[in-house]
Amino acid sequence: MRDVAIIGAGMIPFGRRDEDGLMDMLAYSSLNALDDAGLGDKSVDAVYVASMGAGILQHQTAVASALVDRLSLLPAAAEMIENGPASGGSAVKMGLLAVASGYYDTVLVVGGEKMRDVTGWRATDFVATLTHPLAEYIYGVTLPGMAGMFTRLYMEKYGVTREHLVQVAIKNQKMGALNPYAHVEMIITQEGIMDSPHSVVNNPPVADPLRLYDACPVSDGAAAVVLCPLDMVKNAKKPPILIAGFGQATDTHTLQEREDPTDLKAVTLAAKQALEMAKLKPSDIHVAELHDAFTILEIAESEHVGFFKKGEGGKAVAEGKTQLGGTIPINVSGGLKARGHPVGATGVAQVVETVWQLRHEVGKERQVKGAKTGLTVNFGGFGNNVVAFALKRVNQ
Amino acid sequence: MRDVAIIGAGMIPFGRRDEDGLMDMLAYSSLNALDDAGLGDKSVDAVYVASMGAGILQHQTAVASALVDRLSLLPAAAEMIENGPASGGSAVKMGLLAVASGYYDTVLVVGGEKMRDVTGWRATDFVATLTHPLAEYIYGVTLPGMAGMFTRLYMEKYGVTREHLVQVAIKNQKMGALNPYAHVEMIITQEGIMDSPHSVVNNPPVADPLRLYDACPVSDGAAAVVLCPLDMVKNAKKPPILIAGFGQATDTHTLQEREDPTDLKAVTLAAKQALEMAKLKPSDIHVAELHDAFTILEIAESEHVGFFKKGEGGKAVAEGKTQLGGTIPINVSGGLKARGHPVGATGVAQVVETVWQLRHEVGKERQVKGAKTGLTVNFGGFGNNVVAFALKRVNQ
Repeated sequence: MRDVAIIGAGMIPFGRRDEDGLMDMLAYSSLNALDDAGLGDKSVDAVYVASMGAGILQHQTAVASALVDRLSLLPAAAEMIENGPASGGSAVKMGLLAVASGYYDTVLVVGGEKMRDVTGWRATDFVATLTHPLAEYIYGVTLPGMAGMFTRLYMEKYGVTREHLVQVAIKNQKMGALNPYAHVEMIITQEGIMDSPHSVVNNPPVADPLRLYDACPVSDGAAAVVLCPLDMVKNAKKPPILIAGFGQATDTHTLQEREDPTDLKAVTLAAKQALEMAKLKPSDIHVAELHDAFTILEIAESEHVGFFKKGEGGKAVAEGKTQLGGTIPINVSGGLKARGHPVGATGVAQVVETVWQLRHEVGKERQVKGAKTGLTVNFGGFGNNVVAFALKRVNQ
Repeated sequence: MRDVAIIGAGMIPFGRRDEDGLMDMLAYSSLNALDDAGLGDKSVDAVYVASMGAGILQHQTAVASALVDRLSLLPAAAEMIENGPASGGSAVKMGLLAVASGYYDTVLVVGGEKMRDVTGWRATDFVATLTHPLAEYIYGVTLPGMAGMFTRLYMEKYGVTREHLVQVAIKNQKMGALNPYAHVEMIITQEGIMDSPHSVVNNPPVADPLRLYDACPVSDGAAAVVLCPLDMVKNAKKPPILIAGFGQATDTHTLQEREDPTDLKAVTLAAKQALEMAKLKPSDIHVAELHDAFTILEIAESEHVGFFKKGEGGKAVAEGKTQLGGTIPINVSGGLKARGHPVGATGVAQVVETVWQLRHEVGKERQVKGAKTGLTVNFGGFGNNVVAFALKRVNQ
């Protein structure tokens, strides 16, 4: 088993990208990552593409080999990996295993989604294809609906309040406004989205108790990384980032089958595996990207990965512990909430952001000072399939 | 890099499976493979699912984690791999790399497709989603259309005749009739589909010069294998089969961009890599599963992998060299032509059939006597992405 490093990272701004198709976005972000890796004439052995919706949204299959041709990387091996909203994390994991195995030396991993090829309810319907077809989907359950029910249970059991949720949204949109890759750039306030008598207009209910600003937007976007064995990194201009640990766990397909639906077992297990492999404790992590498709998820995940005890995550946000300069800065990228959530891109984008943070490249307004360790959590299904990575800066 | 063995193989009969959904077929074939592996209480670390059409045909995503739950394999890792008609080969390759890396010890790989959830032209349209959206798909190019043009060029350049094609169909349907897992069980004759004045009715044109019996059927089906490190195989009741070599190569997305469209470069390269890794020559192979989605492809691939010189493949079929008892028996399973071609299942089914052949388990009517080495070629796109495996019987 070889140690695997990330030597290149690239992204394109997330948002409405009306002029770009899925293949364009995959190509642009790949070229950014390859350029960042400075491979020169060195070839790429394999390309792993993450997309949840190429077939459903673009009516296109075999996009990975199409991308290899477009990037002039023939005859590199190519596959698409789909794992719901954790497709990106899964593709990075596939790249990790491939390089660790010794079969491939250089692997490009790129995740992308063109969500806005459909409009309105169709985007929500698309994401709902991950639910159980007979036990959930046919009854009209959507992801916002599930998240609403989950939030209600979490509030009742752990005392999370509307204010805690609002503080996550405010924090992440504030950071998104500072991130040139983020979809949402609007600063919001507690007055505007909660306290004001107009807040029900500004911030209408989506799935009670969740409101508009509790949910991530529907975004287009793509992100990419280049992996190679750590011992092949020589004279790199930028510090290589070691994939020091990874974890992955699945849970029941339907939420109703879980003994305690507020217990995200797969998050706990995936993070534990990643941290143990990296020989790190939660308190050793300097920066984290958690999967805040809904504000409640950032709070719940921050507890499940071990940053806070159960029931302490909401208060921690309100106390500023998760903001830049806090004890554990979470989603200083803006997270899914503000950077956006092109589903296939998200798991890769979390890794790209963390690579940039660990290289100290994001600029002083967003940089976690001296960050050397990072944790990412990519949440598929409604916690059905979770992929986590522990990353470490090496060589200095 | 650890040596990886196949310790379990399972399949379900291909064909019209009107009562089974995709998830049912994935589950049944997985259980067959797990049972065959005799794992007992030993857990599975990861499940890789191959499907090209789950999203388009079943409007379902994240099928891999759904399957893990259905098989009670939680919290095993899970991913779906899509690579057009080579999805199955790609999933086996992902399993190979994962076990070789040392991260996972036991991996279940299962490929399946429920093609008959749609009817008529929609199945052909679905497969055409692998073509170039702007250079091919919008002009109505289908895979039978491409194969027809390819056949014409191949006939003109290499002297392949209609009779050669017909002999492939007759051979493979004869073997399919002997294979309990095959979709097509009908024996056909040269008189019936070519010589008789009624042959144009019996065997109508599909895409000139290809006729009905030159094409594989539209089938439902699934197949699965269980992988583990060779050195962990102890007291196995059945001989473990070593994945001695694998190869994969991509080619241009559009056929029109190839200098010589009859030159299937990715087939040549993938087979060469697989054989070299296994330290075998083409003449060392005892049994082969080639991707005969159309009769011409069996002939063309048999030349490109090195069994015959260019232009000799058609004659070789007519001379009986590729039938059971010939110098290199090809598709004694019936191939895609008769076993059927549920696209995500095919690459895995080729491996399952070869495992059974190398274990000498298929029964005397189909068994290649004393077979110890096998080659599989899974052809994605129109040769855009080809995955090949060289398998070897070990321990006796």
